[in-house]
Amino acid sequence: MACKSEKGKIAIIGSGLIGQSWAAIFVGAGYNVTVYDIDDKQIEKALANMTKSLKSYETQGCLRGNLSAEEQSKLITGSHDIKACMENAIYVQECVPESIEMKKSVFGELDKYCTKDMVIASSSSCINSSQFTENLNHKTNMLIAHPVNPPYFLPLVEIIPAPWTATEITNRTRQLMEEIGQAPITLKKEVPGFALNRIQYAVINECWSLYKNGVLSAEDIDKVMYEGLGRRYAFIGPLETMHLNADGIKDYCKKYAEGMQKVSSTFTPPPIEYDAATADNIQEELTNIVPADQTQTRKEWRDERLAQLDKLKRNK
Amino acid sequence: MACKSEKGKIAIIGSGLIGQSWAAIFVGAGYNVTVYDIDDKQIEKALANMTKSLKSYETQGCLRGNLSAEEQSKLITGSHDIKACMENAIYVQECVPESIEMKKSVFGELDKYCTKDMVIASSSSCINSSQFTENLNHKTNMLIAHPVNPPYFLPLVEIIPAPWTATEITNRTRQLMEEIGQAPITLKKEVPGFALNRIQYAVINECWSLYKNGVLSAEDIDKVMYEGLGRRYAFIGPLETMHLNADGIKDYCKKYAEGMQKVSSTFTPPPIEYDAATADNIQEELTNIVPADQTQTRKEWRDERLAQLDKLKRNK
Repeated sequence: MACKSEKGKIAIIGSGLIGQSWAAIFVGAGYNVTVYDIDDKQIEKALANMTKSLKSYETQGCLRGNLSAEEQSKLITGSHDIKACMENAIYVQECVPESIEMKKSVFGELDKYCTKDMVIASSSSCINSSQFTENLNHKTNMLIAHPVNPPYFLPLVEIIPAPWTATEITNRTRQLMEEIGQAPITLKKEVPGFALNRIQYAVINECWSLYKNGVLSAEDIDKVMYEGLGRRYAFIGPLETMHLNADGIKDYCKKYAEGMQKVSSTFTPPPIEYDAATADNIQEELTNIVPADQTQTRKEWRDERLAQLDKLKRNK
Repeated sequence: MACKSEKGKIAIIGSGLIGQSWAAIFVGAGYNVTVYDIDDKQIEKALANMTKSLKSYETQGCLRGNLSAEEQSKLITGSHDIKACMENAIYVQECVPESIEMKKSVFGELDKYCTKDMVIASSSSCINSSQFTENLNHKTNMLIAHPVNPPYFLPLVEIIPAPWTATEITNRTRQLMEEIGQAPITLKKEVPGFALNRIQYAVINECWSLYKNGVLSAEDIDKVMYEGLGRRYAFIGPLETMHLNADGIKDYCKKYAEGMQKVSSTFTPPPIEYDAATADNIQEELTNIVPADQTQTRKEWRDERLAQLDKLKRNK
């Protein structure tokens, strides 16, 4: 039996894993959530899965908010009617597959039922919204709010307005993300890859080169992160790291910029080629560490660790 | 009163913070440690400081090994006699300031008392050992073992042999690092910046460009790491991340390489200039977040978090 929250209603478009994650986050903050999907069977499956996830978070001690898992489950309903799903919603989060055609078609539909104050955000991970909202009536209400997987435990949300998105809509999205316990950042303009993937690709490029040039094994490259640099980055960003490792970032640059530039000048210039021979060799090494039949177990291990880290970080 | 361990003796050359950290790690694994410094007063200060640190780790529940802090403290002695410090040592860890002249002078001394099976490792963070061991009698016994700050909670150690370092010495260093609970990686050849700083500079370069191009605030750039990417990297390296996010890394490249290359082709080509105007702007923003008089508190907060994460990671 569904319950009505006083906080307002959120519409989630698409009931896949990302849609389910958004729903769990919003009900954790006490919102009513309606999850849209074309297929009633898929909706039923998603609702059952969300109930199960919330229960499991409760058991692990990492359920968000003050309501029980059962109470939170009751805040979620499903709908195969896009109009009904969006009716009275203050915020719409689209979570359909990553394809321009798909985004165009879905946003065309959402545009029909968008009201003056409604925010319509896409979970798109690499397509900027200017590529699919330009010709819509409510394009000033639309933007990207890109979560990171798994969103329940990795709170970063990249907010990217299109050139025509209203500032008020961008600000309201950021405020809402903060209120529900996510960690929003706001890109001031559209860039290819957004921010997270740009930084991730910079890392991958150098790791790929280190491997290809025969400097380190794949296992040792990964260790640089999870036994060193990555542990620090779980708490402190790259700029503050520089700031704290000298008398401020200006002093850091004064002391180390020359050395950093000397090292950087030996980087393989981007874009680097992800060649098949190197991919084959890395795959062979990684398969020895994580055999194909254990990737699922390994992913569960990773998510459990991320949950523990999130708990550690939220506690203080 | 000093106690004798059956595990053997380690010589630490230099009693600054890195030397003290190495000593704490070795006594945690039950070794006898002799810490060398020129100045007796500095040695006394270092011994008192190490005793205090070990006590504090014990109180925080993060002391390593099975011995009490008091028992571990008794395994450490000081010496201002380099010959006596190295006598019967199985492993020597040099921790003097980062200067080629200083390393040359100290390694010249260490060379005099080096025996056939002794390992002599430098904590150097950017000078490769071929730059200061080439003309020494025991150059095959010498290499780099670069720790990450704070070494007690960030276990990564970069082992970098010079072209003439004996394989047996490199392997023995790695085994010893593993035995004492550090996380060694072995660079198969010398490269500028070693591995950690190469990857760190790749990150900084892209972050710097994102800031300079007006895409994100300094605070939001740092958030990309500590609320997103960095949390994942605390447990899983960049290569395994690709491997798990598709059906293996080959499949990942097949699906995403083209998009990654398109994004990478918009990177500022290295080396990038760390210009004064940008440094000024970042400094101003960061000083608002961490005022100059609070950097020490913030560093303590960071180290405490790193200790908690290390505990979380060592527990399973």
